[in-house]
Amino acid sequence: MKKFINHPDAVVREALVGLAAAHPELRVDLEQQIVVRADAPRAGKVGLISGGGSGHEPLHAGFVGLGMLDAACPGEVFTSPVPDQILAAGKAVDGGAGVVHIVKNYTGDVMNFQLAAELSADEGIEVHSVLVDDDVAVEDSTWTAGRRGTGATMLVEKIAGALAEEGGDAASVAALGTRVNEASASFAIALSPCTTPAAGRPGFELGEDEMEVGVGIHGEPGRRREKLLPARDIATMTLEAILAAKPVAAGEDAIVLMNGLGATPLIELYLLYGEFAGLLESAGVRIARNLVGNFVTSLDMAGMSLTICRADPELLRLWDAPVRTPALRWGV
Amino acid sequence: MKKFINHPDAVVREALVGLAAAHPELRVDLEQQIVVRADAPRAGKVGLISGGGSGHEPLHAGFVGLGMLDAACPGEVFTSPVPDQILAAGKAVDGGAGVVHIVKNYTGDVMNFQLAAELSADEGIEVHSVLVDDDVAVEDSTWTAGRRGTGATMLVEKIAGALAEEGGDAASVAALGTRVNEASASFAIALSPCTTPAAGRPGFELGEDEMEVGVGIHGEPGRRREKLLPARDIATMTLEAILAAKPVAAGEDAIVLMNGLGATPLIELYLLYGEFAGLLESAGVRIARNLVGNFVTSLDMAGMSLTICRADPELLRLWDAPVRTPALRWGV
Repeated sequence: MKKFINHPDAVVREALVGLAAAHPELRVDLEQQIVVRADAPRAGKVGLISGGGSGHEPLHAGFVGLGMLDAACPGEVFTSPVPDQILAAGKAVDGGAGVVHIVKNYTGDVMNFQLAAELSADEGIEVHSVLVDDDVAVEDSTWTAGRRGTGATMLVEKIAGALAEEGGDAASVAALGTRVNEASASFAIALSPCTTPAAGRPGFELGEDEMEVGVGIHGEPGRRREKLLPARDIATMTLEAILAAKPVAAGEDAIVLMNGLGATPLIELYLLYGEFAGLLESAGVRIARNLVGNFVTSLDMAGMSLTICRADPELLRLWDAPVRTPALRWGV
Repeated sequence: MKKFINHPDAVVREALVGLAAAHPELRVDLEQQIVVRADAPRAGKVGLISGGGSGHEPLHAGFVGLGMLDAACPGEVFTSPVPDQILAAGKAVDGGAGVVHIVKNYTGDVMNFQLAAELSADEGIEVHSVLVDDDVAVEDSTWTAGRRGTGATMLVEKIAGALAEEGGDAASVAALGTRVNEASASFAIALSPCTTPAAGRPGFELGEDEMEVGVGIHGEPGRRREKLLPARDIATMTLEAILAAKPVAAGEDAIVLMNGLGATPLIELYLLYGEFAGLLESAGVRIARNLVGNFVTSLDMAGMSLTICRADPELLRLWDAPVRTPALRWGV
């Protein structure tokens, strides 16, 4: 294992030290292991909280700031944050209007956010939850009952975050987040495994000419393993899987997230995006907004995921609203 | 070799197709292989042009837009753009105030930009040039006489781009770019080689426990190869190399670019940034501005570079000016 680290046990904490140094507009509580907007809590504003295992950066801490999350709770690498951590985030950001938990569908996360919601309620904090389960590759997986939560998480965070910023109440913000999740589907393909600092060796093995089709963001198995194909065939296969699960009709608008899993060069992501754009144009689907880059990653995995969110004017308006976070910024 | 491509010869062209689809605010000329701001040429505005071999994305095409480059000329992977391409960019962006070439110091780039400058002059376009040679690792290298141009290129593009945007003349914009380069120093360390699509195999080999100290962005050899060290020792070694070549005194301001070379996870870049921030604070240097992420890359190389630019209030003001490009955006 070759990584820029000091000790496997210290990676998350030391990365948070760096995050704090780089972004003085965030408040990083190293003891509680939470990342909070410096202006939180804001009276009357719903507090948006997400979190999950580390190793998917910039998700989630990179999306804390104006127009997106109020707090992130990074767990250890590929490990859920603990309930006390999530409770601490709730206390830090609740401005009296309650909080919304955005939870990726993994058993540990679901359980710990649920426990945190109960603890928060005991403290008088109103909690609503959004469960993200956009990955259409498999129905159940290594760490999930039901579909896994992946790329759509950042779309939920952006769009629900915009509504919270403009004064939406907790129930409305949560309902909107759920609506974004339901409108979204993702599918991922890996060309290489990833290596966690603690394990020190790749999480799975792939042959020199193989790809994992439908991989999860922790390296969970997908639908099958097969020989590597040209980018245009990979794009076709990916899009078919997504549209079979959640169709987008000709004439409809979509937000498209062309996401790298960590080690895939941007030149390849743009090449793939060109393939997807061509296929969607042929299908009559209008890509109303897009992002190309590394947003929901899996450490050093070479691979990509595509997320498509069927969009209406309200979602697009909230997508376009100003955002100022370490990893996503526009309009301000 | 496992990459999301169709054919090694088509990578750059097909990535440009994707870039055009993703960014309608840019004009991508596939025949000339240039990327231009959609509003170019603008009467009276100096046109900023850069370019170089592809494989370093988002450099350069990802920095085309308001407040930064007017045009980028991507060559084939790790291959200089040709003079006709650079000339075409000049014609596309010259609004009568001349153009400024930002050239990384590699023999092929220097020669082709020089030829393009002569061709442009023949067409009545005033050309000034900025040579970027910020990499303090080695004096001469595989493809250079003198120091290599690396991370500081994006600082030059940002700061000179801001001056061009606010109406600076060509000589002033070029002089400012040269000043930013002179104030900047970079140093890189690789944990893995990179693989070009054409070669299909890694450009060099590194042992399971080795790192290349002072590596170039094409995998050129650095100062030495040695056993992998903890992040804090790597940070110390890197900073010593930079400050030995271009000292920053206690009390001075710096812009710090913590850059990933492609395959290094963001969590490691933030961890490293924390180390650098601690060391610089101990030295009394104030990090006035910073960026952490993948900006000047080397395909799928695992590694990092640090760039430090000694800054004064004018440079910081121009750094903060609005920018709207695919890979860097704020204030708009």
